[in-house]
Amino acid sequence: MRKSELARLVKLIYSEGESSRVDLATKTSLAPSYVSSMVNRLQQKKWIIEGSHVASDRGRRKVLLYFNPDLAHVVGVEIGRVHSRIVVTDFLGKTLSFKKIPSQVSAGEDHALNSIHREIKELLKQDDKIQGMGIAHSGVIDRARGMVLFWPKVSGWRDVELRRAFAEEYGMATVVEDSARTTAITEQRFGLGKGQKDFVFVHAGVGIGAAIFVDGELYSGCNGIAGELGHTTIDETGPLCSCGNRGCLEVSASGSAIIQKVSTGLEQGVASSLSEAFSHDHQGISLEAIASAAESHDRLCETILAEAGIHLGTALANIVNLLNPERIILGGTLPRVAKNSLMEPLKRSMRSRAFQRSVSRVDVVVSELGEDAAAVGACLLTANQLLESLSIAAVS
Amino acid sequence: MRKSELARLVKLIYSEGESSRVDLATKTSLAPSYVSSMVNRLQQKKWIIEGSHVASDRGRRKVLLYFNPDLAHVVGVEIGRVHSRIVVTDFLGKTLSFKKIPSQVSAGEDHALNSIHREIKELLKQDDKIQGMGIAHSGVIDRARGMVLFWPKVSGWRDVELRRAFAEEYGMATVVEDSARTTAITEQRFGLGKGQKDFVFVHAGVGIGAAIFVDGELYSGCNGIAGELGHTTIDETGPLCSCGNRGCLEVSASGSAIIQKVSTGLEQGVASSLSEAFSHDHQGISLEAIASAAESHDRLCETILAEAGIHLGTALANIVNLLNPERIILGGTLPRVAKNSLMEPLKRSMRSRAFQRSVSRVDVVVSELGEDAAAVGACLLTANQLLESLSIAAVS
Repeated sequence: MRKSELARLVKLIYSEGESSRVDLATKTSLAPSYVSSMVNRLQQKKWIIEGSHVASDRGRRKVLLYFNPDLAHVVGVEIGRVHSRIVVTDFLGKTLSFKKIPSQVSAGEDHALNSIHREIKELLKQDDKIQGMGIAHSGVIDRARGMVLFWPKVSGWRDVELRRAFAEEYGMATVVEDSARTTAITEQRFGLGKGQKDFVFVHAGVGIGAAIFVDGELYSGCNGIAGELGHTTIDETGPLCSCGNRGCLEVSASGSAIIQKVSTGLEQGVASSLSEAFSHDHQGISLEAIASAAESHDRLCETILAEAGIHLGTALANIVNLLNPERIILGGTLPRVAKNSLMEPLKRSMRSRAFQRSVSRVDVVVSELGEDAAAVGACLLTANQLLESLSIAAVS
Repeated sequence: MRKSELARLVKLIYSEGESSRVDLATKTSLAPSYVSSMVNRLQQKKWIIEGSHVASDRGRRKVLLYFNPDLAHVVGVEIGRVHSRIVVTDFLGKTLSFKKIPSQVSAGEDHALNSIHREIKELLKQDDKIQGMGIAHSGVIDRARGMVLFWPKVSGWRDVELRRAFAEEYGMATVVEDSARTTAITEQRFGLGKGQKDFVFVHAGVGIGAAIFVDGELYSGCNGIAGELGHTTIDETGPLCSCGNRGCLEVSASGSAIIQKVSTGLEQGVASSLSEAFSHDHQGISLEAIASAAESHDRLCETILAEAGIHLGTALANIVNLLNPERIILGGTLPRVAKNSLMEPLKRSMRSRAFQRSVSRVDVVVSELGEDAAAVGACLLTANQLLESLSIAAVS
């Protein structure tokens, strides 16, 4: 039994979801008897499990095979600017537990990481199947080195070697990736990206990022940092951005820009249903509160969300003209909470700016995934890496 | 001898440039004796030719094989707004003849095409090896249907079925493609795109277009019209563009915008070395004349070219942030004639707007190809299609 053939078979069973011995023999071009003997070995070692018998096309019954979801579990952590989210998933990415904690990034990097470590240690006590860690982070990430290079709008967090820190702490395979990208991976596996080839996932929360898929594969660029949509220029003479450039999309359409604009309006005494709450707590205005006020026809919040929609529409028109995708999926807090106020101005702006021939083919949809999506995507990436590294020798 | 194996071998020999029988057997995983018998058949039919004997790595001498460049010749036509360029190339894309004629598009579509047909008929009389036609066009192209959908800045030319017209006239394989893309194909085969994986070719002439390469393959988008960089928005409140949008890159940085701005300056009486020439001929200001005046420190032309460079730099920064390419190749008339005035402001603007981590990795270069590049690329695409369709049955 060759290791390379066994590894190929394992990957095929994992990626197919379900398959029969006959399917596997056809897809690998290996002899059915040889495939059967490898399958038996994988079953003995509990890497794969048998499902129910189903009728095959020639009337004979065949047995479906599945990858064992409990072969290993994975901890996934999304470190966000406001909250961190911690999940445990099985090997196929199904969420087994979910917890949301304040990320307390302003209290410093060590403080933020310590509270995450406490949660993880608790989880490890409860689940002895955990064999890997996936970290999703909204900063600028160097994937190859598993580092946070810097974190726009958060001080500190410069050249943080997250992968090394976690791998040393737990001695497990650890993957570090941008959270817009990990969410996009979840979108492709379980969400609105399923079966799509050329599509773009746009994450709009505190910041704005994108993940570009070409022929079903995530495109990363020459050093892994493609997709910085939030820092593309849509208004050359526009306001300054935190990145030092002028007129970036983020200045006019990110969650933090929206909160900033509403706060400025309230400070200026613009009439709004948020005025009273704001007079108590200048820092506490959330996107959720703004979206909810807009739905009750608060003019200030309606105006500012509509403006954000128009600017996002400009950026999406640029994506449409440049990349001609079949679908754009909007994820993140902003479209989740403010869909009703945002989408109509967004689509109108996009349509008026993009080429008719491209825009008529694109489908703009709002993600339906839950708020564990970024952490789950990190688990999926880690499971994929475990699949490469789990000792095939142990079963061959 | 199986047709499918023969076809695979033919494509391999074509794409490799040069190869020995041993290389071919290794790359196809076919038995050396079987490869030899196919090679002999292809030689008898003159599809491939033998080159010189060279020393192989084990000291034995081996014979290099080449695709026969004269198996078929191809006519390539670039239909531009000012000039049309007509080439004949051999099967490997080497230019055998080149002619430039006024395209006279303003005299109507039939008139423009008739003068091209006259040239082609002359060429067909002189070269009986011609077996295909490649048409490069700067309008918006539907590749699948071989049609010009419309041509910004040129009236008429709506839904022109170029492929059908040429195929009916000559009974030959005909390919119709966007001229920025055909130039990019030439750039990849013979120019600065050779060996690059993730790169972008930006064509800046009368209009501005881009061809995006992902992992060495041209990316087309879901219905074949990706790359409309000229109509991405860089200034939301900017001037109106001919496409109906506001603040497109083309309004501020295309060749026609530059000519328009210089003309307006001259009409307003701005001092310029072009004033006298302009007073005789309001229509006749060329990019070449503007570039040459700028090099002699004509302030008007220097200012307007520098402005165009700054705006192009903004658009390239957007490409850098979104796509993180390893190289951007600038082609077309504008960088060819105005490189000295354009590139410094362009690079400064790009660097100041793009993320340091991405922009430090990208290499911005000006194409060194000749003005036959777009037509040659059309020939390469046609040769590729001929390779698929030439009757393999004839040699098998």
